[in-house]
Amino acid sequence: MPHEALAALTDRLGEGGVSVDDRDRLMHSFGRSYRDLLAARRGSVDRATDAVVYPGDESQVVDILEIAERFGFAVIPFGGGTSVVGGVDPQTGRQQAVVTLDTRRLDGVTIDTASHQAEIGAGVIGPDLERTLQAAGFTLGHFPQSFEFSTFGGWIAPRGAGQQSTRYGKIEEIVQAVRVVTPRGTVVTRNAPASATGPSMLQYAIGSEGTLGVIVSATAHIRPLPAAKRYAAFLLPNFESGCEMLRQFEQTELPLAVVRLSDAEETRWLFKSAHSEPSLGRRIGRWVVDRSMRRGGYDASQTCISIVSFEGDPPVVRLAVRSARAMARRHRAIYLGSSPGKSWERDRFRLPYLRDELIARRLMVDTLETATTWTNLPKLYAAVMGALRDAMAAAGPPGVAMCHLSHLYPTGSSLYFTFLARQVVGRELEQWQHVKNAATAAILAAGGTVSHHHGIGNEHLPLEAEHGAAAVAGLAAVKAALDPAGIMNPGKLFPGYS
Amino acid sequence: MPHEALAALTDRLGEGGVSVDDRDRLMHSFGRSYRDLLAARRGSVDRATDAVVYPGDESQVVDILEIAERFGFAVIPFGGGTSVVGGVDPQTGRQQAVVTLDTRRLDGVTIDTASHQAEIGAGVIGPDLERTLQAAGFTLGHFPQSFEFSTFGGWIAPRGAGQQSTRYGKIEEIVQAVRVVTPRGTVVTRNAPASATGPSMLQYAIGSEGTLGVIVSATAHIRPLPAAKRYAAFLLPNFESGCEMLRQFEQTELPLAVVRLSDAEETRWLFKSAHSEPSLGRRIGRWVVDRSMRRGGYDASQTCISIVSFEGDPPVVRLAVRSARAMARRHRAIYLGSSPGKSWERDRFRLPYLRDELIARRLMVDTLETATTWTNLPKLYAAVMGALRDAMAAAGPPGVAMCHLSHLYPTGSSLYFTFLARQVVGRELEQWQHVKNAATAAILAAGGTVSHHHGIGNEHLPLEAEHGAAAVAGLAAVKAALDPAGIMNPGKLFPGYS
Repeated sequence: MPHEALAALTDRLGEGGVSVDDRDRLMHSFGRSYRDLLAARRGSVDRATDAVVYPGDESQVVDILEIAERFGFAVIPFGGGTSVVGGVDPQTGRQQAVVTLDTRRLDGVTIDTASHQAEIGAGVIGPDLERTLQAAGFTLGHFPQSFEFSTFGGWIAPRGAGQQSTRYGKIEEIVQAVRVVTPRGTVVTRNAPASATGPSMLQYAIGSEGTLGVIVSATAHIRPLPAAKRYAAFLLPNFESGCEMLRQFEQTELPLAVVRLSDAEETRWLFKSAHSEPSLGRRIGRWVVDRSMRRGGYDASQTCISIVSFEGDPPVVRLAVRSARAMARRHRAIYLGSSPGKSWERDRFRLPYLRDELIARRLMVDTLETATTWTNLPKLYAAVMGALRDAMAAAGPPGVAMCHLSHLYPTGSSLYFTFLARQVVGRELEQWQHVKNAATAAILAAGGTVSHHHGIGNEHLPLEAEHGAAAVAGLAAVKAALDPAGIMNPGKLFPGYS
Repeated sequence: MPHEALAALTDRLGEGGVSVDDRDRLMHSFGRSYRDLLAARRGSVDRATDAVVYPGDESQVVDILEIAERFGFAVIPFGGGTSVVGGVDPQTGRQQAVVTLDTRRLDGVTIDTASHQAEIGAGVIGPDLERTLQAAGFTLGHFPQSFEFSTFGGWIAPRGAGQQSTRYGKIEEIVQAVRVVTPRGTVVTRNAPASATGPSMLQYAIGSEGTLGVIVSATAHIRPLPAAKRYAAFLLPNFESGCEMLRQFEQTELPLAVVRLSDAEETRWLFKSAHSEPSLGRRIGRWVVDRSMRRGGYDASQTCISIVSFEGDPPVVRLAVRSARAMARRHRAIYLGSSPGKSWERDRFRLPYLRDELIARRLMVDTLETATTWTNLPKLYAAVMGALRDAMAAAGPPGVAMCHLSHLYPTGSSLYFTFLARQVVGRELEQWQHVKNAATAAILAAGGTVSHHHGIGNEHLPLEAEHGAAAVAGLAAVKAALDPAGIMNPGKLFPGYS
């Protein structure tokens, strides 16, 4: 990092706005992908960022990009650092150095209660945002697994989704306007609920993953806290009947918020990880369920669990639970009441911690996700499960693959896969890459999308595999026009343009 | 039009695929804007298209664009020709000739009943599409005023909206994947219900108004025909209380489909244009309403009418009507029952015919529309109404301006304005242009968007006024990358690039 560049940054941002402290640099040099976690355990990163800057407002962001272009360093926008696809890796591209731009000081929240909107700074983290909104009677309804650490801007950059997206929408449906500082001016989209004024620049900025510029703030649709909320859980005789039941729930417009359907493998894991010393009440409950399963002709090896929640006005929620239970019976489901849902909610942000522990015990563990139409879902599910199992067996010890549905649409659903196997010591990365490549190829061949909410980062390249050459040429042209020097987040989305 | 170019087209498309017939050319040389209708009445167009082509499949579209680039003629995609903003005007840009590409033969419809989707050819017109879908128990739910003539592709190109968009969404929410033939390859977006794979090329194609390429087909979310449908109409003491009532309906998630709220001026016009010889039943009804108005302290000059419909499952619709009536009372509304809604539905596509008649009687009559947040709505309404009245008075005989809300969102609403005045004979266009400019300036200054569903065409240029320079540079770069010769629909959206 040239001394003059640092001096220019310090001059503009003050001493507190620029850091070259080793710990700061290290903490801004990786995300939370399996590759990142391997490197962190090894105690080394491939490349550390050269400095960290903390702009306090939009004008400072404008100046940072101007200084970056003048001195030839790359800029990586950084929120909570929870990317699982290499979205914040310090790559330099054709620049000589790299500076990570931490958005934490871009932290304002302004609520418009009549319009159900809030203008929110990119750096606001999940718990702070919900505390502010809920104090005013609202919620964003966006609860990704990274919620405790990730930022509003970090949700927008990769087109993220929260665990209640079936009700509240993915972030691209929640956000209505953005401010993005690019090296060639600030893109400010108009805050209208809808418009017919040409192609959408808003829907370009959402998903730009830091390659276009720095998202400094955005205006979001916020929702009143629901007056009623009810969980309902069901056992299903198999995955197919679970999919059909959820399809019917969604296509009849039940007010679903949380939706989970675990396949048979994941259902077994969930039951194994439940309390080992069940209480009397739980044992009675289990006995009742066992009896229902016998009577319903269930095969235990095929049984799946589904957890859903309904939110809205009390009469609407009451009607929904009644309708759901009636529909569920037609799919031979066994109603389990509300407690499995409540217990899921208690643990909803814990899984990433479990992953750290499993990796510490020398297990390869990663997740990947896709989405497709209801019609194509069985084919995609079978293709990816087969690819994961075959690839794990080919790359090392045979592993376990499992799947759940967790974000529904009238036209289809996301599929979320988890795979685990013992690590091949000394070849951990190669083992993982082999499995990852096989899964990605299977997703694309079977008509899925390479990501429903994790993003592209540098793990899902090249983009042409998803979009085709013509679309990528079009998308990259925007990057080239607004970041001609290629300073913004090199190596992601459009590596050839940075 | 060079003879060799015509020969190449005929060679590829056959005799029936190319027309230089004068009537065909004329019928493809204008849309339905006020300017177009003036020209049509005058019996002359500024410029006629040089030929009309009728490709029968996607490969023929590819070849037409290749021939166009080779021989240097522009290509204008053409659906029903109902653009009201100059979207299909035959401008040549830097090309020497212009060919209009009529999509009527791109007319397939394939339904996926499990996924609630249909893949639909760009050239399918409204009535044909609904007939096909409804025979299978579905609807697209997209009913623009141009429904009888306009095409599926023509709805996508300008980001249109139907009269039930509050329930079914604007076209950009209905469409899930597109195929667009561009001069530099075909953009085929992946058919997934959602994804996180970079910026959205789908949301670039929607709204591209023919400047990117030819939309040949798209996959849309279709909905089961509603099991129940109920109209409800209300009188409100003034426009503000009507807005507040509708905001509450929408923000409490009532299943609204049709929504109309006419301001006091439009309400007067509607009552004037109703039957002059009311039946006994109507007279009794009117007497009851008059009494309620007196008791409610209504000022007749401020009274507004609102018509809404609810669609969905019978218990959901029953609950909605009950909730709506309870809410309405808190806004001092008078319930008028379902017949005003039914009568609106009967006449829903008639207004454009009325406009033709009024123009024949030497009236200037046009509509314009915008959208904004609930909080900003009163300010925008007042600004545009003031601008319309002032500009009409300045440009000729003072006219009448009126407004209604017709597309609701949790965060805001569209506003649809109609203005009428006696024509200034001999200066009809200047008179209109003066009023139009004033309204557009007022919309932008008061924070609205220059169009909610009509599009940009060549009437709402330059695009920078809406989006700012940085965003337009980004958007135009896509056009430049995929249509470097500038053959696609010159003069629209990005006139500098064609």
